[in-house]
Amino acid sequence: MTTEIRLHSEEAIIQEFLAPLAAAAPGALGLKDDCAVAAPSPGCEFILKTDAIAEGVHFLPHDPPAAIGWKALAVNVSDLAAKGARPVGYLMSLAFPEPPTRDWMSAFVSGLAEAQRAFDIHLLGGDTDRRPGPISITPTVLGEAPIGRMVRRAAARAGDLVCVSGTLGDAGLGLALQRDPATGQSWALDSGDAAHLVQRFLRPQPRLALRTALLDHARASMDISDGLLKDLGRMCRASGVGAVVLRSDLPLSPAFRTVQRVAPAAASQALFAGDDYEILTAVSPESFPSYVEAARIAGVTITRVGHFTSGPDVELHDRDGGIIDVGRSGWDHF
Amino acid sequence: MTTEIRLHSEEAIIQEFLAPLAAAAPGALGLKDDCAVAAPSPGCEFILKTDAIAEGVHFLPHDPPAAIGWKALAVNVSDLAAKGARPVGYLMSLAFPEPPTRDWMSAFVSGLAEAQRAFDIHLLGGDTDRRPGPISITPTVLGEAPIGRMVRRAAARAGDLVCVSGTLGDAGLGLALQRDPATGQSWALDSGDAAHLVQRFLRPQPRLALRTALLDHARASMDISDGLLKDLGRMCRASGVGAVVLRSDLPLSPAFRTVQRVAPAAASQALFAGDDYEILTAVSPESFPSYVEAARIAGVTITRVGHFTSGPDVELHDRDGGIIDVGRSGWDHF
Repeated sequence: MTTEIRLHSEEAIIQEFLAPLAAAAPGALGLKDDCAVAAPSPGCEFILKTDAIAEGVHFLPHDPPAAIGWKALAVNVSDLAAKGARPVGYLMSLAFPEPPTRDWMSAFVSGLAEAQRAFDIHLLGGDTDRRPGPISITPTVLGEAPIGRMVRRAAARAGDLVCVSGTLGDAGLGLALQRDPATGQSWALDSGDAAHLVQRFLRPQPRLALRTALLDHARASMDISDGLLKDLGRMCRASGVGAVVLRSDLPLSPAFRTVQRVAPAAASQALFAGDDYEILTAVSPESFPSYVEAARIAGVTITRVGHFTSGPDVELHDRDGGIIDVGRSGWDHF
Repeated sequence: MTTEIRLHSEEAIIQEFLAPLAAAAPGALGLKDDCAVAAPSPGCEFILKTDAIAEGVHFLPHDPPAAIGWKALAVNVSDLAAKGARPVGYLMSLAFPEPPTRDWMSAFVSGLAEAQRAFDIHLLGGDTDRRPGPISITPTVLGEAPIGRMVRRAAARAGDLVCVSGTLGDAGLGLALQRDPATGQSWALDSGDAAHLVQRFLRPQPRLALRTALLDHARASMDISDGLLKDLGRMCRASGVGAVVLRSDLPLSPAFRTVQRVAPAAASQALFAGDDYEILTAVSPESFPSYVEAARIAGVTITRVGHFTSGPDVELHDRDGGIIDVGRSGWDHF
């Protein structure tokens, strides 16, 4: 069967599958040189990030290869989005335990190509190796921002508002559904809601539309990859502040609310599980209305979910001001 | 025993071991932000490269961790050196199948720190994950070169001379010795020669001293990581030319010559095995004397080993002009 034809040559992988991803970037030199060339636009500097994804850790073995390609790029571009940076290009290191099949590679590259179009970014260079272990994809992305304007993580101040984009917890439920589709029936989800949640897990959408709003109005910003409480804790530690978040103010999708009614424990766990790739921002009370409005014009809903304190703790409060114990929540890489 | 204390927290690895590597680079933001910031010097552009190394593939499980740290950076900086670029910074993605011990991490980082000092480069950011498979280290390096001046791979012309720096084959013998130290005795090597060969494998030295000579005098350039014939073949294909190399003109170290007398088959195999990290250049006959002189002033010996032809084949000739069949030589990643 053609599906089983494996690609035994690095050269074939590069020239047939990867070079087309680099065709529109002059600095990639057709992937035919040892290095790539890149320079930021006048008045800008580069914003750099690398975040690897591996089979069994960040994606499931039966996830569609196109979704894996999309996700590899999306989780890195999400960091650029949070910093107010415009994506420019990426290098990508690939590791395969055995030569990939032509079909797998073709689908994987189609997901990358789709992500490239969506994020306006191009492949600049990379490296393909065969070694034991899970399939691993390690992109290093380059974005650009006006010099000195990158929105930092460490700049939140006591009194600033804790804001998040979009809705939280969908990807955590999507992961559970992707692991076991039968779960959707026990959660009384219709197929549309189930598909929505799975897509939130498989196809994270970096909030690039927020770029101008963040540059103009945010004090501090980062993306929510490991769960709100964990990432908020990081912003607080970096900034030397604390925070209070109101559980009842967290933005939830209709699909999430459906699950929450039927399976509150699963919903609670998913809420802070990570993979949301929404944007967490510290915004001064004065800037809040203009931030919300700029985001609205960009098509993104912003919700105030709490405020920063003089610290150092991050507390989750219920409607009556009681502290909710969420234990050890969020994704840990170790 | 303290050697067995394992580092179970990504945060501890970053703040205790990696942050000191980033301390002198303002754009690293202390590794406390989601992204790093970098801009090339005025009049320069960035030259970018990523090349992963993995246990069991690019280094041996019992290689000293300091040598692994050195090598991870050196094999990437070697590409910058070949392009005439000055190293600036790097991001690094680390994957561990189990939490590293404090001792391993400490030695690994000391090798990185030594390489940073030698190459004048600093850590800008990265990512640390736990996943099955071999220990993998994926740096992405940034260098800079004057705009438009990067020395290309694809620019060799028929009639240009094939030149290499230093000596070839030492690393291939060093790998054999590192695999089985007893081999050194059968090769009649004294301990100094054996140590020299092992060091050529464990501690490749990027030829950064050649930067100005390459920018001023080379037509095309790349580093020799996968063996002279394989990499020369790549330069020829990219440039649309062929080449003839004289076996008797290849530069050999005294240690290599010793092995060649006693074990000619092992020497022949090592000669084109890769890991030399010398610089392969195409130089016009007119530029050759000034290239050699500029390299000599920089402390690097250049040897003319052949010439480029109208192509397309790469041929290895013996002293009488006969073609030597070397079969499938050089390192293949797949």
